[in-house]
Amino acid sequence: MNKKISIPGFVFSGIPCGIKEKKGQRDLAAIYATEPKTLISGVFTQNQMRAAPARWCQKNIGDGVGRLVLINSGNANAATGKRGWKDCVKIAFAAAKVFAVKPSQVFLCSTGKIGVPLPVKKITFHLIKLKRHCGAKNFFHAAQAILTTDRGIKVAFAKGQIGKTAYTMAVMAKGAGMIHPNLATMLCFVLTDLKLKPSTLDALLTGSVDQTLNCLSVDGDTSTNDTVLMLASSLAKNKPFGKHTRAFRSVASTLTALLEDAALQIAADGEGATKCFIVSVRGAKTTNDARKVAHAIASSTLVKTALFGNDPNWGRILCATGYSGAKVTEAKTSISLGPVRVFARGNPVGKNERHAARYLRQNKLIDITVDLSLGRKRARAIGCDLTYDYVHLNAEYRT
Amino acid sequence: MNKKISIPGFVFSGIPCGIKEKKGQRDLAAIYATEPKTLISGVFTQNQMRAAPARWCQKNIGDGVGRLVLINSGNANAATGKRGWKDCVKIAFAAAKVFAVKPSQVFLCSTGKIGVPLPVKKITFHLIKLKRHCGAKNFFHAAQAILTTDRGIKVAFAKGQIGKTAYTMAVMAKGAGMIHPNLATMLCFVLTDLKLKPSTLDALLTGSVDQTLNCLSVDGDTSTNDTVLMLASSLAKNKPFGKHTRAFRSVASTLTALLEDAALQIAADGEGATKCFIVSVRGAKTTNDARKVAHAIASSTLVKTALFGNDPNWGRILCATGYSGAKVTEAKTSISLGPVRVFARGNPVGKNERHAARYLRQNKLIDITVDLSLGRKRARAIGCDLTYDYVHLNAEYRT
Repeated sequence: MNKKISIPGFVFSGIPCGIKEKKGQRDLAAIYATEPKTLISGVFTQNQMRAAPARWCQKNIGDGVGRLVLINSGNANAATGKRGWKDCVKIAFAAAKVFAVKPSQVFLCSTGKIGVPLPVKKITFHLIKLKRHCGAKNFFHAAQAILTTDRGIKVAFAKGQIGKTAYTMAVMAKGAGMIHPNLATMLCFVLTDLKLKPSTLDALLTGSVDQTLNCLSVDGDTSTNDTVLMLASSLAKNKPFGKHTRAFRSVASTLTALLEDAALQIAADGEGATKCFIVSVRGAKTTNDARKVAHAIASSTLVKTALFGNDPNWGRILCATGYSGAKVTEAKTSISLGPVRVFARGNPVGKNERHAARYLRQNKLIDITVDLSLGRKRARAIGCDLTYDYVHLNAEYRT
Repeated sequence: MNKKISIPGFVFSGIPCGIKEKKGQRDLAAIYATEPKTLISGVFTQNQMRAAPARWCQKNIGDGVGRLVLINSGNANAATGKRGWKDCVKIAFAAAKVFAVKPSQVFLCSTGKIGVPLPVKKITFHLIKLKRHCGAKNFFHAAQAILTTDRGIKVAFAKGQIGKTAYTMAVMAKGAGMIHPNLATMLCFVLTDLKLKPSTLDALLTGSVDQTLNCLSVDGDTSTNDTVLMLASSLAKNKPFGKHTRAFRSVASTLTALLEDAALQIAADGEGATKCFIVSVRGAKTTNDARKVAHAIASSTLVKTALFGNDPNWGRILCATGYSGAKVTEAKTSISLGPVRVFARGNPVGKNERHAARYLRQNKLIDITVDLSLGRKRARAIGCDLTYDYVHLNAEYRT
């Protein structure tokens, strides 16, 4: 792990403030932008029961300037009625005062228990300490403070070049409990020193999220708090660039790689997961069809339990393909597990089952490929297996 | 358990024929209609990867006459390519010969492993024995022979009257493994001696399935083999009746009650389930919205694990409501667990959590009520909890 992630224009802090039950655990984080004109863009949950902090961010994101991201873990401030919103306002104003920024430039994220009022005083009381601990080298403190049931931090870092100008980009994320974001909160923060136009920043973020984190999410299936924020400090010396340029494609590919890395880290750390998998669907008539199939397979509890049991049960994959809602034809469908073809154009390949079982036993990252042979469109989805520990964590998490 | 279910015009048989791994377990069943003009109607899986037996039934159901339903468990004859279809043809012709009916009047159902060729010879070899064991009192033998991972048989029986004419109606079903029919096969057979017009039979079955078994299923989320067949022998002395009559409403309510009973038995026997639940959504703007919410809650693995842990975690119910795709408003939404209101028009009712936890601990059949307060439409869904045993059964079922 690179212990030296730093991005010009940002300082970080992560401290314990007593929201989580275990004492001494970091549960309050700040990402503070030192440059007054730091740009911000965001992608938010499509859930209609949006939590108060997500609504607060959406209200302010339009201005396009972000100076402080304040994240607490241990309490989601979701389903907390009018009080939840008032608590956001109180915290944003208090933080704005301590960090000497405008309240509308404070972006709030919360993750943890639902339906319990946020301990506002604990948070506001610790703001001065939080600010004091801010430092360019404290990236990992913040990355730790945003976790809930995650087994470890999720970070990714890249250095890139536009022409001869260097830039840096970093991601910190927290897992979606179970990796399907309808089931728990996914938070992701991207920081860069690039000089960007607001419209370029928006296009970069939306495009890359769609190919990566939205393969964990899909459609409206998101938690009440899911939030992705990207901030750009403009300290790099690059010239601003537009959408249809080589610089854009280069930066987009860096960002997509970082977010894919984060998505896989989230999947691998799905609650109780022992392995994660990538479903690649090709040969679909439309991209939407390809997505439906990939999503149905990645969401199937029967596929997830079969992978946990190292069972090359392609019948369950075929079944999910059939009920996905996409146009499919059994006689044209083929399925592979890793390099092993187990179902070829409508017929089982019985002799390969043993190889497929060995592939499952020997790998932690499983590739599932479904070829529909109906067209040229593709899509991917990322998932993890379903295990005893998942049931344990979720039957006992709150009580 | 009523050990004397019998329906005029039908004889039953269930014998072991060696498809299931455990020797001596009944795995081949016949429902044989003695009357040449016995009417049949059916509802089939919407999965595009329909298994060969389901396609065979659909091909022949249009004729409207059914003389023999032949069911095997232990092998689903699904995803078996062209061979699967040929095997259906062979079995139907062999059975037609033995039972002296037309092949197109033989209806086939298979349930069990996917992707393994059906042991056709074992089945055809046992057909004569199967016929010899047919008897009016062997309803329970057949009900047992259609089971796979079910813990017990699922049957329901009713006597009704139209005016002064008595009739009988019986149901046998097998569970959908996990109760959500996208995950395993649900089979259900309804038998009655009523005298019905074909169009009346169709209307009765479709209407009642929609209110009951389709609350377990929903939309296109069905297995490759799901099949519901209803047969009417016409031996009762009632006058045939049309759709908008008192007789129709009376029979429809009997049928709906029987199918609801079967649906709850299937839910209670979901793989590894310790409790089942009914989600009642009301106050929706449209029926479709009400169904979306009920389905999202009943399908949420987080809701299912919370119920297993006796955790009144209404936040997860609210979250599923929010991502269901229906029009909802947090500030108008209320949630009750049994008689206990835990979320009232956008606000948690913290003081009731302890009562709700007690209600969950003390009941095996849980009522979840969600009131959206946006209109007058309602819908229900039936589900069961998600437990360690579910993971165990499905990680180890096939290997």
